[in-house]
Parts: sequence; C-alpha cells; structure tokens
Amino acid sequence: MKQFLSVEDVPGVPRMVDIALDYKANPFKDKGLGTNKTLGMIFLNPSLRTRLSTQVAARNLGMEVVVFNIDKEGWALEMNDGVVMNGSTTEHVKEAAAVMGQYFDMLAIRTFPGLKDKEEDYTEKYINQFIKYAGKPVVSLESATRHPLQSLTDAVTIRETWKEKRKPKVVLTWAPHVKSLPQAVPNSFAEWMNAWDEVDFAITHPEGYELDPTFAGNAPVFYNQEEALKDADYVYVKNWSSYKDYGKIINSDPAWMMSNQQLAITNNAKVMHCLPVRRNVVIADEVLDGPNSIVIQEAGNRVWAAQAVLSELLRNQ
Amino acid sequence: MKQFLSVEDVPGVPRMVDIALDYKANPFKDKGLGTNKTLGMIFLNPSLRTRLSTQVAARNLGMEVVVFNIDKEGWALEMNDGVVMNGSTTEHVKEAAAVMGQYFDMLAIRTFPGLKDKEEDYTEKYINQFIKYAGKPVVSLESATRHPLQSLTDAVTIRETWKEKRKPKVVLTWAPHVKSLPQAVPNSFAEWMNAWDEVDFAITHPEGYELDPTFAGNAPVFYNQEEALKDADYVYVKNWSSYKDYGKIINSDPAWMMSNQQLAITNNAKVMHCLPVRRNVVIADEVLDGPNSIVIQEAGNRVWAAQAVLSELLRNQ
Amino acid sequence: MKQFLSVEDVPGVPRMVDIALDYKANPFKDKGLGTNKTLGMIFLNPSLRTRLSTQVAARNLGMEVVVFNIDKEGWALEMNDGVVMNGSTTEHVKEAAAVMGQYFDMLAIRTFPGLKDKEEDYTEKYINQFIKYAGKPVVSLESATRHPLQSLTDAVTIRETWKEKRKPKVVLTWAPHVKSLPQAVPNSFAEWMNAWDEVDFAITHPEGYELDPTFAGNAPVFYNQEEALKDADYVYVKNWSSYKDYGKIINSDPAWMMSNQQLAITNNAKVMHCLPVRRNVVIADEVLDGPNSIVIQEAGNRVWAAQAVLSELLRNQ
Repeated sequence: MKQFLSVEDVPGVPRMVDIALDYKANPFKDKGLGTNKTLGMIFLNPSLRTRLSTQVAARNLGMEVVVFNIDKEGWALEMNDGVVMNGSTTEHVKEAAAVMGQYFDMLAIRTFPGLKDKEEDYTEKYINQFIKYAGKPVVSLESATRHPLQSLTDAVTIRETWKEKRKPKVVLTWAPHVKSLPQAVPNSFAEWMNAWDEVDFAITHPEGYELDPTFAGNAPVFYNQEEALKDADYVYVKNWSSYKDYGKIINSDPAWMMSNQQLAITNNAKVMHCLPVRRNVVIADEVLDGPNSIVIQEAGNRVWAAQAVLSELLRNQ
Repeated sequence: MKQFLSVEDVPGVPRMVDIALDYKANPFKDKGLGTNKTLGMIFLNPSLRTRLSTQVAARNLGMEVVVFNIDKEGWALEMNDGVVMNGSTTEHVKEAAAVMGQYFDMLAIRTFPGLKDKEEDYTEKYINQFIKYAGKPVVSLESATRHPLQSLTDAVTIRETWKEKRKPKVVLTWAPHVKSLPQAVPNSFAEWMNAWDEVDFAITHPEGYELDPTFAGNAPVFYNQEEALKDADYVYVKNWSSYKDYGKIINSDPAWMMSNQQLAITNNAKVMHCLPVRRNVVIADEVLDGPNSIVIQEAGNRVWAAQAVLSELLRNQ
Repeated sequence: MKQFLSVEDVPGVPRMVDIALDYKANPFKDKGLGTNKTLGMIFLNPSLRTRLSTQVAARNLGMEVVVFNIDKEGWALEMNDGVVMNGSTTEHVKEAAAVMGQYFDMLAIRTFPGLKDKEEDYTEKYINQFIKYAGKPVVSLESATRHPLQSLTDAVTIRETWKEKRKPKVVLTWAPHVKSLPQAVPNSFAEWMNAWDEVDFAITHPEGYELDPTFAGNAPVFYNQEEALKDADYVYVKNWSSYKDYGKIINSDPAWMMSNQQLAITNNAKVMHCLPVRRNVVIADEVLDGPNSIVIQEAGNRVWAAQAVLSELLRNQ
C-alpha cells in the first residue's frame, strides 16, 4: 500500500478489517514497526476523532507524531498555480507540501471541500496538490469527497458486531441537519460497502440528494425511507448536502430524523454514525441512548482502522 | 486512587506530598510505570503551568500524552441533556467524552466556570458530564470550583520550605484584580489546608467575599487583613469574585494588594500565588522580586504534584 | 555552547556545518543524547519550517518536546518592567519565563519584532527577557533581528551543493513584497556569511534598504542589482522592510523580483530563499520551478541545522 485515499488503495476490505481487528486484540504487537519514522498530521480543518485516534494508532506502532494545525499555527496556503501571490495567502502548497515531505516519512492530511465549486472539490484539488508535491505517502484524514478511515472503521464495526451467517442488510440513510455538510462520509461509506462482498447495501434519501454515481455505484436507492429500512440489520445515518444542486440544503424534512419510529421498521438494526452528531436533529436521544446505537464502539474502532492503515504503509516503505 | 478532583480522592495529603517530593528527588524512577498508557489532556480553557507541567510529569512516567484544545482544534460541546442541537454546539459531551474514553487510559480536563449560574458551576456540571460518560479516570486540570493540582503543589511547597518543628501559620488573603475570577483556587486551597494537620490555617478578605462554607470549613475568617497577617508564616495571595453575589466584583480596594507594608506585619512570611499574577495589582513588584516570594519554586512543584497524582492513578489501573 | 541566538554563540560556522551534515548522513546516531531532557518550544508567532524541523531534530536526539503556542493556548505576556498590570496582559514574562525554566531543560522561542520601535526590536527586548528569567539555555526560533537556525541551514546548503575549489560568490538580494517584513533573515544571513570564510559575500538592494551595519559588516553593497548578480554562484532572495525608515516599505519596484532575467546575469546561480515565499511577487514561478532553485533542499536542511544546535547544547549540559 502506497497511499490511503480511497478503497482502491487497499489490498481488499476484508484484509484491512482483519488487520484492524488483530490490532484491537493486541494493540502493541508491532510497537517496533514505526521506529525512527515520523508521521506529520496536517489539519486544514478541525477534527476530534480522526486527530486523536490516529495519534494513538501511530504511537501504538512506535511512530513519532507531529501535529500541525496549519490554518491556526501557520498561515493560509495558495492552492492555485500561476498566481501572483499578492493577496491573503502566504505560502504555496508547492513549497509547503514539498517541505513537509522533507521532514516526515508519511503525511496525513485533513482538508474539507469548499462546497462552492463542484469540480474543484470532486477533482480533490487540495489533497492532490499535497500528493503531487509531498513526495511521501499521504493518508487522507478526510478530503473533499472521501473519508476512508471512517469507512474502514465502519466495516470493522459491522464485522465485529455481526454474528449471523447470512449477509447483513446495511442501509445508508440521509438525515436532516442545520448546516450544509460535505458528501465525503456517505460517498466513502457507499464506496467501501459496494466494494465489500460481506454485506448487502442500499441507500435512502429524499429526491435531489443523489450521491455522485461514482460512489453510489449499483446500490439500490430508495426515496422512501420506510421502504429502505425494512429488514435493515445496520442503519448508517448521515446528513449530506446536495451533489446535484451542489452544496445546497434542498430539503430538511424532520421526518427523516432517525428515531424509534424508524428503528421499529428495521430488523432491530444497529445504528451507526460517524460523529459528531447533532442530537434530536440527525438522530433522536432515544436512539443514541438506546441499546441499538453502536456509535461509541464505532468511534473507538477508529484507532484500529488507523493502525491498520499506518502499519500497511510502514511495511511498504 | 480512582480519580483526582478534590482532596477527598487522595490517600491523605501527607502521603501525596511524600510521593511528590520523592519524584522531585528522583524524577525518572518510575519511567516504566506508564508504558503503553495514554493520557488525553483536554482543554476547554487556556493554560500554561497546568498544561506544561502535566505533560512533563506524564512523560517522566513514560506515559504517552495527547493534548487537545477542544475549543480551538475541535468545536463547541453541548453540555445540556435533551436539547435539540440546532444551534451553535456541534457535539454533545455524551459522545465526546465517551469517545475520548475509548482512546485514552486517563483523561485530564480543564473547564472554567461561567460565573453566571452558581448552581451550574457549584454542581460541577461540566466536569461531571465528562466523568459520567468517559468511563476512564478523570484528572481535574482545574474545574469550576476546584484546582486540586495547584493545592497539592501548595502543600508540597509549604512542606519543603518549612524547617521549624511548630506548625506554620498559613493565611489565605484575597487581593484585588481587574477581572471577575473563579473561586476555584481559594476553594481548593482552603479545602486542602483544612484537611491537612501540618498547618494552622486562616482566611482574610473584605466582607462579601466569603467562600462557600463547604470549602472554608472551620478556618477562622478575618475581614481585617492586618489582623489576619499577624505572625503569618505563609501568605497565600489570590483574587476571587464573590460567591454570595455570584461572580461579581463587589470591592476592589487597592489597599488589599500584597506589598511590603503587608509583609512587614507577618513573621517574615513566604509569599505564594498560583500564577499568573498581575503585578502591582494583586502583588507588588517589591514582593514578587523580593526574597520572600516563593512563587517560582511553587510553580516548579506543579510537575511533582502532577507526577504523584498520575502515578497513583496508574498504580490503581 | 550555552545558547543559540547568533553566530557568536557557535564554535565556528564550519564546525557547525560539519555537525549538521554528519546528522544528515546519520540522523539517529545520537538517539540517546537527549534522554530525560525536555525541550520547550514557545511560539509567540506562527511557524511552519522552524516548528516542524526542530521537533523532528529533537526527537532524533531522543529529547522530549513540548510545544506551546503561548499566544493562542495561553495568554498575552507583559514584557515591560514596573507596569501596573491592569490592562490586557495577563502574565509578566518574569514569571512565565522563570516557570518554563522550571519545566524544561532548554527553551526554544520564536518572537517577531513589532517593527514600530527600532530600539525595542534591536535590543532584542523580548527574547532577552526570556533569557534573563528562564535560567536555562535558550534557542532562537527567530527573534526580532536574527534567524540563526535559518542561517546555519543556509551555510549547510551552500557547503553541500558547492563542488568547486574556489570560493563561491554569494549575493543577498532584496526583493519586493506586499507586507512590511522584519530584517531578521537578511541580518542573520549577512552575519553568518561575513563570519564564514568559505564564501565571498555581497549585498544588493534599492537605496534606503541598508541593513544595520552591525550585520552588513564589510560586505560590498550594490544599489544596482544587475551589477551585484554578475558572476553570482548563489543568489539569496529575501524581502525586508527599511531599517533606516524603520519598518516601512519605501520601494516595491517589481523589477527587483527574482526572475529568469535576473538569473541569466549570474553564473548559473543556485537560488535560495528561507520560505514562505510569495510566488510571482518575490520570486517568479519560472525560477522556483526551474533547475536552479534549491529552496526545498534548503528547507529540508533545517532539521540537520536544528539537530546540530540541540546536540551542542545537550553536550554542554
């Protein structure tokens, strides 16, 4: 494995899940693997789970970690080529990325989409500029269109909680929110579920919230949430803004909030969410505080997903 | 020891002072104690001494440390239950605390009082929400009503500077300030001095600045600073806002500033302060720069107090 | 070596360059040198290269590192003595520096000039206050008038790229910028080049941009850039504000930007810059993206310069 940006970078979802669960059982078994290797974690946007779990994972492997909030501890980066930099940006990503590539053995980067310019976001302009100039393996800590550490975590969580022999039915459902959010988590979740033959996967959302077909793939899509949730074993709840009417909130129907009413339709489904979650907007208290929620276990698994990814990159160096 | 929030959590003040002074004499004697254990340090408010000394202490014990300024590197937390989160808070403490409890073996948290709602502050709502949901030992890095790492440090500093056989007279004196400050440091100092039979303890402040009786206990209280400082061996200087007229500055009489005039009344007392201190408002330059000030030694002892606390928690895990 | 503030602190430029290049060849050869020693890195201003490279260097030597953005994670420091602190500063540098001196074995500090008060800046008031009160070796991460880690890096980069027997001609050239910038980098570069007998050194800038003679020394100064660049083997490009008309931009002639036109005058010179660089304002894309630019290699060498400095300080403790 040479980088970690999407499901296409990994040697199979089942293999990555195996590695992650091995680390969960024995966190320190590869403590020497990262000796004298340094991970630079670069944040252009805030982070809680990704930031903390990846630090813990790297230290479990004996890697050094340097965290840099470039937006707050550094300065604004110029991402466009050929610009006369007489404005508000202080350094070009060409230099910033190349320099960080000199200091670190691996770069992990978080960079959100602007949600203004679909092409800029969907060509992953920002993270690709880092990849182009860093000259070192890059790990996505969430980019404009994907959040692969989250999706690997989700697969790990489904595998470890599923005890039956048949494939579980996994449903991704849109939910309302007060802000315009990226499509990165649902895109990535769809991409990973579609690539993973251990589950049956479906998507439900109001009309107009269709995901980019590249990610949605051949998963059945339902505009009727009730229909989709029938017999679901896992419900993955997440808000996202429109891909078609790019970055817009075109519907915020509270009936799509995940509540016990929705849960009752399912096959006593486990409820998942990447967090942070706005309670009683996206998911009701009764669900988050009830026995079907596995969101904390899911968040805890972020460590093992990150450790699996870092270990595979280290083995390749 | 299972948590560190107040003097009630420790196996006796003298025992904790012993442990701290042992580490001062031999900082690295337990370097293996924290192997493969991670301390998460969570800041909802700024910090200098607490932040830096606790990091050093944890590393002296071989613990991993992850520092997280949740207010700046993350987002605003919702502390109230049952809320529809359609406002400015992004994540509920239920999730944030539970998730951090998944990543860390121990959580250290700093959270100041709002000084608006006495009940909210004095029930320690914020830190208690973390304790309730983290599922891991919690160390207070100063909470709404207490600053126990500071108070342990203060006991350590008194013990190591006191050479006579009689008990020293320790006086906590209010001093003026330009801002409304919490009662956490004086509360905690009173609580620890009252629980420690190696000192005679008294309190002095202008009328209206009475501390919560839970903390002041049976310590004699003087409205006359001169009377209180007579024969004092240690003067602990600190501003606080009113508990009665909650969070208010009801008096800012500059005559209460600690100067050589005050010092002359004492028994050549050592002068202490938790820092940061506003010079020539709280304490005069002549005192801070003179031979009676032990504020730097006191601040230096923060490392050993923190190391004592972390080591006791590690031994209990 | 007892501190690192200027070229006068080091045991010779060639010796420091040797040490740095040895570490470049073998980064981990002194991994035990910093055991149980902690470096406190204190930022009063933003930083990318200095922050990241110094962290990596310290860890290569086995030192603990604690990073503290005092302006963002702490509070404003009072730098003036005798002040009644009833304004916006929360803590005096006397306490802050002395306390950090209690926690760390070495302090590294970044503090920019205000560019308002020449005397305050050129007496290095801020960093000198830290030195005065910290009681521990201080490393400059760039101060009001010097950036010695950068200058050592520059010497390292010149040595490792120069293959001829004759001395290279090194020219420092002013370039335009949109903001008023410190003289620290050019001052320091001039100071180090003047102290280093492996190069011939000259300076060029528009009239009015003369550096403080303390730094410029006996280096020939040209107001005509073309004349200066003739036969140059290295061109060090940097903007600075006026020393005479202190802190002012008195000329922003775009003809001074480093472009291929300038490069053509030189002896196929290597182009250097401390970074961050505003592209097409200070240096043209065609130069930065061309074969003569060594700015990334130069930035990469920051690690080895910092490692050389820290190792010399550790050996002295």
